[in-house]
Amino acid sequence: MAKQTKTAITPTRDEDYPEWYQQVIKAADLAENSPVRGCMVIKPWGYAIWENIQADLDRRFKETGHKNAYFPLFIPVSYLQKEAEHVDGFAKECAVVTHSRLEADADGKLQPAGKLEEPLIVRPTSETIIGELFAKWVKSYRDLPLLINQWANVVRWEMRTRLFLRTAEFLWQEGHTAHATAEEALGETRQMLDIYADFAENFMAMPVITGEKTAAERFPGADATYAIEAMMQDRKALQAGTSHFLGQNFAKSSGIKYLSAEGKEEFAWTTSWGVSTRLVGGLIMTHSDDDGLVLPPRIAPAHVVIIPFTPKEETRAEVIDYCLDLKQALEGQTYMGAPVKVEFDDRDMRGGEKAWDWIKKGIPVRVEVGPRDIEAGNVMVGRRDRAPKDKQALGKDKFVGSISSLLDEMQDGMLAKAKKFRKEHTRDITTEAEFVEFFTPKNEKAPEIHGGFASMGFCCDPELEEQIAKQYKVTVRCIPNATVNEAVACVFTGKPGKRVIFAKSY
Amino acid sequence: MAKQTKTAITPTRDEDYPEWYQQVIKAADLAENSPVRGCMVIKPWGYAIWENIQADLDRRFKETGHKNAYFPLFIPVSYLQKEAEHVDGFAKECAVVTHSRLEADADGKLQPAGKLEEPLIVRPTSETIIGELFAKWVKSYRDLPLLINQWANVVRWEMRTRLFLRTAEFLWQEGHTAHATAEEALGETRQMLDIYADFAENFMAMPVITGEKTAAERFPGADATYAIEAMMQDRKALQAGTSHFLGQNFAKSSGIKYLSAEGKEEFAWTTSWGVSTRLVGGLIMTHSDDDGLVLPPRIAPAHVVIIPFTPKEETRAEVIDYCLDLKQALEGQTYMGAPVKVEFDDRDMRGGEKAWDWIKKGIPVRVEVGPRDIEAGNVMVGRRDRAPKDKQALGKDKFVGSISSLLDEMQDGMLAKAKKFRKEHTRDITTEAEFVEFFTPKNEKAPEIHGGFASMGFCCDPELEEQIAKQYKVTVRCIPNATVNEAVACVFTGKPGKRVIFAKSY
Repeated sequence: MAKQTKTAITPTRDEDYPEWYQQVIKAADLAENSPVRGCMVIKPWGYAIWENIQADLDRRFKETGHKNAYFPLFIPVSYLQKEAEHVDGFAKECAVVTHSRLEADADGKLQPAGKLEEPLIVRPTSETIIGELFAKWVKSYRDLPLLINQWANVVRWEMRTRLFLRTAEFLWQEGHTAHATAEEALGETRQMLDIYADFAENFMAMPVITGEKTAAERFPGADATYAIEAMMQDRKALQAGTSHFLGQNFAKSSGIKYLSAEGKEEFAWTTSWGVSTRLVGGLIMTHSDDDGLVLPPRIAPAHVVIIPFTPKEETRAEVIDYCLDLKQALEGQTYMGAPVKVEFDDRDMRGGEKAWDWIKKGIPVRVEVGPRDIEAGNVMVGRRDRAPKDKQALGKDKFVGSISSLLDEMQDGMLAKAKKFRKEHTRDITTEAEFVEFFTPKNEKAPEIHGGFASMGFCCDPELEEQIAKQYKVTVRCIPNATVNEAVACVFTGKPGKRVIFAKSY
Repeated sequence: MAKQTKTAITPTRDEDYPEWYQQVIKAADLAENSPVRGCMVIKPWGYAIWENIQADLDRRFKETGHKNAYFPLFIPVSYLQKEAEHVDGFAKECAVVTHSRLEADADGKLQPAGKLEEPLIVRPTSETIIGELFAKWVKSYRDLPLLINQWANVVRWEMRTRLFLRTAEFLWQEGHTAHATAEEALGETRQMLDIYADFAENFMAMPVITGEKTAAERFPGADATYAIEAMMQDRKALQAGTSHFLGQNFAKSSGIKYLSAEGKEEFAWTTSWGVSTRLVGGLIMTHSDDDGLVLPPRIAPAHVVIIPFTPKEETRAEVIDYCLDLKQALEGQTYMGAPVKVEFDDRDMRGGEKAWDWIKKGIPVRVEVGPRDIEAGNVMVGRRDRAPKDKQALGKDKFVGSISSLLDEMQDGMLAKAKKFRKEHTRDITTEAEFVEFFTPKNEKAPEIHGGFASMGFCCDPELEEQIAKQYKVTVRCIPNATVNEAVACVFTGKPGKRVIFAKSY
């Protein structure tokens, strides 16, 4: 075997951040690239994280009156074309279905056959097809608000892909709602943004800034786009979820009209909002370290792994029994209103190897049980938020009784740590020179590492914004909601501006 | 308004069964055809049924050691071609992606552009792509069994579609497993069939026959296909789920090999198994009546609807309060380990109209509350498994306390009724003349109605089977597991045969 390196992941974050990200995914067995260009395979441990994300968000959507439905995978090209900005945004990269069967040619090779009259695209997002249906469903003000969500796969033919962060196919939810007034639709847009922010912070332990996008980063066809933005450990921003106020644009292009209480025909006001498997990328880059994935307890597919250490065959049965008892005891405990989830790793491997396996998978708590621990009535407990060697002997019953508070403590600690990191790498910028300095990498060996989030005044001139993006590869991430009313001069022009966050981004 | 017809659904089952089916779906607001050919839109009430199906099956899959994962939507044509029978089965109807973007032509019309080097098909099923990945994941006998499930959408370009029963796109789960031995793989195939059968009977109250398919109805590429077959109210069979023993066919075409404990390289044995949104079609046709959908309590999105009757404005507030109290009390009760699900219908409509709305939606229990009921401390309870006018006054507390047992009673009653119906329309057939008579419609007005399931001996000769299918539009649904060892002579040829179920089918 190769000499043990100091960390479980090679390279480390400091050595090569993008490669570290890929290696964390590989070591945790979360996902991999598939033989189909740009499409990923989400493996069981990664998919279980997505299922937990789904369950928690779905509950929040239902609590706020939304209902799930399912709409077609395919969108006729003519629908896409109805909204001018929308088509510009999505026609450049989409999967086009042109045929309905395959036929063998003279060489026996299968070729597309049965050409369709009108090509279909695989949905990159569903505003146009859902708009067609909303137009049928909405007749009177009594049908409003219409609050629908869809869990689905979508396809955008991205040229450069990266597991979870940017893939040709990805999984997401897309909420689509229609309302009688602009105020109501705006209220919905903001409500869903707040739900995303609360979910990110309290479930994923990933602090986010909520705010509005500038025109340059708006969803194609929206009047306003809001987003949650998180800071990754390379100090770049990740747009982790968006909520769009679509005004009457899609209502007009799809014909979503209603008869008001006063008997007048009006166009509805619509919204859409979504988060995707990209969240898993955000999760990885918020918490993981040079030993691999670190999972906040609330999102973890399992909370505790029990690893038997059985050096001698004659004590093996006793150790296994003790572990199974411990498993049952832990599963009798409650965390977040459900039983604690426990894995018992009885694979035919050395205990130390198993422990490293679970460290790389990010499981919050490891419990090692050997003959000597049993004798002392103890278990050896390792926390994923501490160093791998930093293990503690705890009385078995005490450990079982305190598991829920231990998990809470870890969850809170991870959020606090991520908030501290973001605070350390967020700076108030007041001059252009400071701005340039802030975004200049200091370390030749780590060209990715730069200042972080620049909080500063900006006049929001689109041409200036574009120029800055080209020159410095830095963009306005959002106009934070928290400071939206602050009057502040533009750092570049001195003109009256708004407080924005500039950052490099994914 | 038009004169009230005798039933809420027109036409009735006897008048026009296929049209009755469409009208039940429409009246219950379950789904509708979309503007995209052959693709349906699953509306909230229909999707909630699917979510309940998913939750219950998913629990069963996980309890038997399966893990969820997600594989690409697209399959390269070259993969499909690796398994000869498989490609024959699916190439004839599939959505083919040939381009990766759209470009405006001279007239401004969007045309496919960015032609792909190799066309991709939208997965009609995922054996080939999952096989490629299993081949990477499986190295040693320690990696087996590999037990994976995927919840996904699939596309088969069907020419004639019908909501839930046969649509171009549908939702399903597909299990894919790999094993070290044929015995283990066969055991898995049978285990999953049994899980489907138990689910159908005990969750959906839909009795099914489990059995093996004849060669003619085998999955393309399988060594053996097992199915659950249910009888619909027009006495036709619905294949409601399948479980395939794939032998080493896909292992060989994809290269799924493992090193055995003895150090020998061996091909794995694989299985696949699936159920789809077709189950919702089966649900509808097993239980619904001429007043619309009838939902077994275990699968119903809500168990009870409370409908306020407020004839006078001055007692309105009191009625509403009483209803909300009742709702809370009911939600404090447990059914199947979770709180009873209650809808309170406070829409601005007449109470009677609301009641019919919920009858058509199939909700198990309707509770009507008016000022006079409150005075008497009563509620008026209507059960969906009884006639709409057959309502019973019950003391409020007594009703609340007995809700769980009432729901159990209804669930059991629905299964018993469906079993009785199937028994009445299943006959032991011993001569060809009987066979012909059994499948001949008796009623000119209802050309769909025929005998039902014919239980009989058959030699399973493929040519004879094909001839019978052509001549009588009747096929072998399965060789039932329950009677697989029975020696019985073929009704047609007198040769030694197996007991099979012949039926018309969906």
